[in-house]
Amino acid sequence: MSARVLVVGSVALDDIDGPFGRHPEVLGGSASYFCVAASYFTPQVSLVAVVGDDFPGAHVDLFASRGVDCSGLERVPGKTFRWRGRYTDDLTSRVTLDTQLGVFADFRPRLSEGQRSAELVFLGNIDPVLQLEVLEQVRRPRLVACDTMNFWIGGKRADLEKVLARVDLLIVNDEEARQLAGVHNLVRAANVIRGMGARTVVVKRGDSGALLFHDSGVFAAPALPLEEVRDPTGAGDTFGGGFMGSLAREAEITPAAIRRAMIYGSVMASFSVEGFSLDRLRSLHPPDISKRFASFRDLTQFDDISL
Amino acid sequence: MSARVLVVGSVALDDIDGPFGRHPEVLGGSASYFCVAASYFTPQVSLVAVVGDDFPGAHVDLFASRGVDCSGLERVPGKTFRWRGRYTDDLTSRVTLDTQLGVFADFRPRLSEGQRSAELVFLGNIDPVLQLEVLEQVRRPRLVACDTMNFWIGGKRADLEKVLARVDLLIVNDEEARQLAGVHNLVRAANVIRGMGARTVVVKRGDSGALLFHDSGVFAAPALPLEEVRDPTGAGDTFGGGFMGSLAREAEITPAAIRRAMIYGSVMASFSVEGFSLDRLRSLHPPDISKRFASFRDLTQFDDISL
Repeated sequence: MSARVLVVGSVALDDIDGPFGRHPEVLGGSASYFCVAASYFTPQVSLVAVVGDDFPGAHVDLFASRGVDCSGLERVPGKTFRWRGRYTDDLTSRVTLDTQLGVFADFRPRLSEGQRSAELVFLGNIDPVLQLEVLEQVRRPRLVACDTMNFWIGGKRADLEKVLARVDLLIVNDEEARQLAGVHNLVRAANVIRGMGARTVVVKRGDSGALLFHDSGVFAAPALPLEEVRDPTGAGDTFGGGFMGSLAREAEITPAAIRRAMIYGSVMASFSVEGFSLDRLRSLHPPDISKRFASFRDLTQFDDISL
Repeated sequence: MSARVLVVGSVALDDIDGPFGRHPEVLGGSASYFCVAASYFTPQVSLVAVVGDDFPGAHVDLFASRGVDCSGLERVPGKTFRWRGRYTDDLTSRVTLDTQLGVFADFRPRLSEGQRSAELVFLGNIDPVLQLEVLEQVRRPRLVACDTMNFWIGGKRADLEKVLARVDLLIVNDEEARQLAGVHNLVRAANVIRGMGARTVVVKRGDSGALLFHDSGVFAAPALPLEEVRDPTGAGDTFGGGFMGSLAREAEITPAAIRRAMIYGSVMASFSVEGFSLDRLRSLHPPDISKRFASFRDLTQFDDISL
């Protein structure tokens, strides 16, 4: 029996350029990556987001085919959120060429009765004011996690701090952690953030893996060294989906369960970057995931000897 | 019974500036960090290097107090190799302000009878022509490892390739691996380098840890997240010393032994960066090392569950 996971975030149409050519009008958005990744762990994933009347039905079909509850995916007149970016040849950095909020600008998340009872809640990278509105609607979740970004850290800090005071877990990348805490050292940055309320902090570091800081200490999940990386877009959101999905399968959210979630998040992210958009993510089979989990074990395993 | 480790490299006087103030005239050089780190694992470490008549006897006393065989540390008239650099406030990068080769410019490594029989040989980051001269002098080492840097990769490539064809293991940082292989992706870069002869490649990535590529697959050693980092100088050389020292204790150089060496290298590097120069490294006790090895286990340990 797995728990219900609720994600509130963005569903978008991306236009991605880079060393492997341009991919216009592909499925994107943090909640898209999140919910498809989480769907491999629990049949109970609810998506709350908004799209315009230009959003292809095939993308909704993808969510539905993965068993995602799309009753909270509003379709309203107007344009879907669009992001256009270009990666450098080595895929290590990207520039945003254009952002069109479209119908996302007026997004107000409204949860159904069933969604309010979700046990695991993920507040995707949206305006902290909206994150607070979601927190007002949920009942007694076992765990609330949130994401954020430089735009909100700089522009809506007071609201963001209200969110952090009410969530259990923050998932951000290293630069966001540093900006939020105002210190460069990641151990100190995590301590500052934990002092704001989120007792568990997960710092994503791209191909350097992810770090977990919580009351039980520190854990380092590596990134799987990959020979073929095609599209890093959504890797962090995919990590979040694998992480929360993995927690949904656990009878109890113990420190060991959170470590497992770190690895399953990394497993799903390693698949995501192998293809464009959600191409690789949409077509996984459970044995692919188990096999890659085993690769992470093999990647990190070592023994001491008595001398 | 541990094996003899021979290191040929630089012993220097550093002048380090950064967020914690300027530290002029401190002990530095790749071989200094290496041999002190290795000395915690085996009583048989031989240092082959050159210093000028300005080199403080106290530094030689330090090596000797750690049981290092200093018979190959030549003292000749002239100035010791000096390096002056400044770190950025976040310690993530540094600029070289001055390099004075001094007596190091005419360094010609000469091995004694005993040193020629060393079982583990580390060719520090010196001119590949000198690395080849060392290879001509050693007898039948069980393992030869080498380091190199951008200066030799760019300027003495043909000689460096001759070295790589004759060593078992290359330890470099990520940028050096990329430059040497001519590709950005680290998995591919390691494969290219392995094709040059060095069947085992260790890629050091600073606070992202180190990756091992060899016939038995890939292993990722994390860096220990530290709250206090004072001086990253010599961290990579310290890693090499811990790595080779750890191998010297092994009855056989198995894949499991190399993984342990990756962790002991990381353990020693984590101490090194906590103090300036060799300050932290010189005063360790064996239980400090065991304890920190346990921290690395705790940092990486995870279990799967059957679902």
